[in-house]
Amino acid sequence: MRILLAALLALAPTAAHAQNLTESTAAVRDRALADRTAWEVLESLTTEIGARPTGSPAMTRARDWGVAKLQALGFSNVHVEEFPAEAWVRGPESAEITTPYPQKLAILGLGRSASTPKGGLEGEVALFTTFEQLTAQPPGSLKGKIVVLSQPMPRTQDASSYGALSRNRVQGTAEAARRGAAAFLVRSISTDDTRLPHTGSTRQAEGPAPIPAAALSPPDAELIERMVARGSPVRIRLNLASQSLAKVPAWNVVGEMVGSERPDEVIVVGGHLDSWDAGTGAVDDGAGVAVTTAAAKLAGQRGARRTIRVVMWGAEELDDSGEAYAAAHKDEVGKMVVVSESDAGSGRIWSVRLPKGSAGHPSVQAFVQAVAPLKVIVSREPAKGAGSDVAGLVAAGAPAVGFSQDTSRYFDLHHSADDTLDKVDPADLAQMTAVWASFLHAAANSDVDFRALAAAAP
Amino acid sequence: MRILLAALLALAPTAAHAQNLTESTAAVRDRALADRTAWEVLESLTTEIGARPTGSPAMTRARDWGVAKLQALGFSNVHVEEFPAEAWVRGPESAEITTPYPQKLAILGLGRSASTPKGGLEGEVALFTTFEQLTAQPPGSLKGKIVVLSQPMPRTQDASSYGALSRNRVQGTAEAARRGAAAFLVRSISTDDTRLPHTGSTRQAEGPAPIPAAALSPPDAELIERMVARGSPVRIRLNLASQSLAKVPAWNVVGEMVGSERPDEVIVVGGHLDSWDAGTGAVDDGAGVAVTTAAAKLAGQRGARRTIRVVMWGAEELDDSGEAYAAAHKDEVGKMVVVSESDAGSGRIWSVRLPKGSAGHPSVQAFVQAVAPLKVIVSREPAKGAGSDVAGLVAAGAPAVGFSQDTSRYFDLHHSADDTLDKVDPADLAQMTAVWASFLHAAANSDVDFRALAAAAP
Repeated sequence: MRILLAALLALAPTAAHAQNLTESTAAVRDRALADRTAWEVLESLTTEIGARPTGSPAMTRARDWGVAKLQALGFSNVHVEEFPAEAWVRGPESAEITTPYPQKLAILGLGRSASTPKGGLEGEVALFTTFEQLTAQPPGSLKGKIVVLSQPMPRTQDASSYGALSRNRVQGTAEAARRGAAAFLVRSISTDDTRLPHTGSTRQAEGPAPIPAAALSPPDAELIERMVARGSPVRIRLNLASQSLAKVPAWNVVGEMVGSERPDEVIVVGGHLDSWDAGTGAVDDGAGVAVTTAAAKLAGQRGARRTIRVVMWGAEELDDSGEAYAAAHKDEVGKMVVVSESDAGSGRIWSVRLPKGSAGHPSVQAFVQAVAPLKVIVSREPAKGAGSDVAGLVAAGAPAVGFSQDTSRYFDLHHSADDTLDKVDPADLAQMTAVWASFLHAAANSDVDFRALAAAAP
Repeated sequence: MRILLAALLALAPTAAHAQNLTESTAAVRDRALADRTAWEVLESLTTEIGARPTGSPAMTRARDWGVAKLQALGFSNVHVEEFPAEAWVRGPESAEITTPYPQKLAILGLGRSASTPKGGLEGEVALFTTFEQLTAQPPGSLKGKIVVLSQPMPRTQDASSYGALSRNRVQGTAEAARRGAAAFLVRSISTDDTRLPHTGSTRQAEGPAPIPAAALSPPDAELIERMVARGSPVRIRLNLASQSLAKVPAWNVVGEMVGSERPDEVIVVGGHLDSWDAGTGAVDDGAGVAVTTAAAKLAGQRGARRTIRVVMWGAEELDDSGEAYAAAHKDEVGKMVVVSESDAGSGRIWSVRLPKGSAGHPSVQAFVQAVAPLKVIVSREPAKGAGSDVAGLVAAGAPAVGFSQDTSRYFDLHHSADDTLDKVDPADLAQMTAVWASFLHAAANSDVDFRALAAAAP
């Protein structure tokens, strides 16, 4: 209680913030818990736009949706920042085992996959159950083979298994191509057991020509394993069509709750508006867009001393819009109070990584106290990064804060057709919104200087 | 214990059954619990054949697989019985909302769907949330509309919700066509929330021309509901291609454990070998084929007095192979001791419906006692039917026994691409096999006369 009182005192009242006089961080938290804005934003985005890959007509509609939504919610300075981004457009796709037992396979091409030749491509399976097994093969040893990397992904609360296994998808294509493979199939980096594969970006090797690359659903990867275990050669026929575009127009959609005392001190938060094409981008990353937008509104609508800026980034999945954003705002980074992206689905926040050295500051303590009843603990680790769209800002010196969500269910859905609104629990969104709003309220109404605290930290 | 002893005495020893002297129904149960045959049969069928709709090349391979499998397991009189059946062959399918918010839809055509005209078909949605809402519309009132029936299916242990809602799929097409609809879309009769729709057979109206009909995944049905709730017209474009074939060759695959004392007294059990095309027919009905085959082997391999016949029926999903089988065996029905089909997935058996009036018979009591530790209770209701493939036999007077399985998870998978081996728990298959083997052992080694018991029952 003493800490809480200190925090309240730290939120020094001014004439311009009469309403803030009576509103504690805990009160903002409680308003957020009862608020429906995040759910309504997400329902609107998934119903009225749906899938919105960078470069698609839907992404153009999503841009206009974002502008209209921020304006309707009372944000100021609503505008669009255009930048060039890479795009990859899926065409028709199919795959089947031809030998020894003909069966259709459920696949989904990976971002940056090459197309197969006209009429498709057939090859013998070279099966590997770990990334290391694949990279242990000598150059040229997989000539003409269809590499299948079948490693399953364990379910974890902290996304650690995604951290460990996403290289199977991201780097597997290049590792297979370097060894002469004709194509690459990866077991989806997924904790689910449906026949819905999970896409995602991959990287082509420098040197060898780009090869076709796709994700297999987990049951299909296991089917191939069972056939291979019978001992005779397994052959697969692939048909993948797609188009890689080096540069398409992309847009970050921006709105602000302008600070009344220190408008040039800016807190930058957001999610990414683009999504993969198979689902409707509900958990990746409609949830992040919705929660940060709602939290900024809730923390800013009764006035705040500093500016809270929401960015709906426009090209997270394939390109690196974080770099574009950082380059466009490099002169402003020195005035950014703290930055963070919400891009880990719609699971509840269970831990926060604070900016280095800030745990003892009264405003941060007010936040920590407010969210403790929401089962949020403070990590011993300070925030390093806080999402790829703010990585450029963080590299340029902006302080970061990170909110760890329960990802137990996220990788059932992420990058698959199953990324739809019905998978989102409104109560989870409200918890997320309450945590974000509490932080934004505490940071925007104090004079906490995260750079100075980090510099003073041991 | 007294009942168990009586049951054991009822299994009168003969010189031909020296091994049976020492084997109780409970001992067969325990052998079955430790046996891997059912799992191995199912693993083989789903790996080496996969999806096998009646009339497909895969069904021809499945027929040969069935013959080889029964022979390898030691069955006698292994043979194929050909009969003509209806077939429906899926072609390319797609659907999308065009107005007000363009979004792709996950659909799967229903068996007996008509094709759309070349270039597809577009129409305005007429949404109904119950079957009664649809049938309350006057004739002609839905002219040119795409009827969407969006009722969700609750999860139940006893398949009662499928019983209540399957008419949405089976009868909805005809009800829509009678009212002038251009096409019919039904929310999948499914308890799952994936983007994988569940197909199944439907019926076309007599009179109006056949119309295109497809299942929507549950999230897609909810998306349409949300759009319709916004108040402006929702339009859908459909492309469905398929071929309906009135007569293709189909096959029942048959094998017997021939009785040593009364070989002409036959117990007929089995599952159906055909499956829908999207999955691999693991739970529907590879599990039924595998469990009844394994149970017949376990109950018969050490000798039994009566014959145990396994039938892998060849056309359950669309046609009515039960009638064909009954017609071909009508002269034999009088000697059928009891008949039953396993066709409700791979969930554990929790209840048994005994032949009418048989609960007090010592052999039946031996069975009931043996399976009580497997958490199988005796229903107060006697068996009426026991699966569609034996419905013709039951109608012709054959006694039936029915095993109720836990279907809590079955309708997550049934008729969808998700019907794959990884969804089956080998321990559940072993429980099912133990229940079936216990019954077969008890019935095949006694002289129980279910017809006489039924006639004597009040």
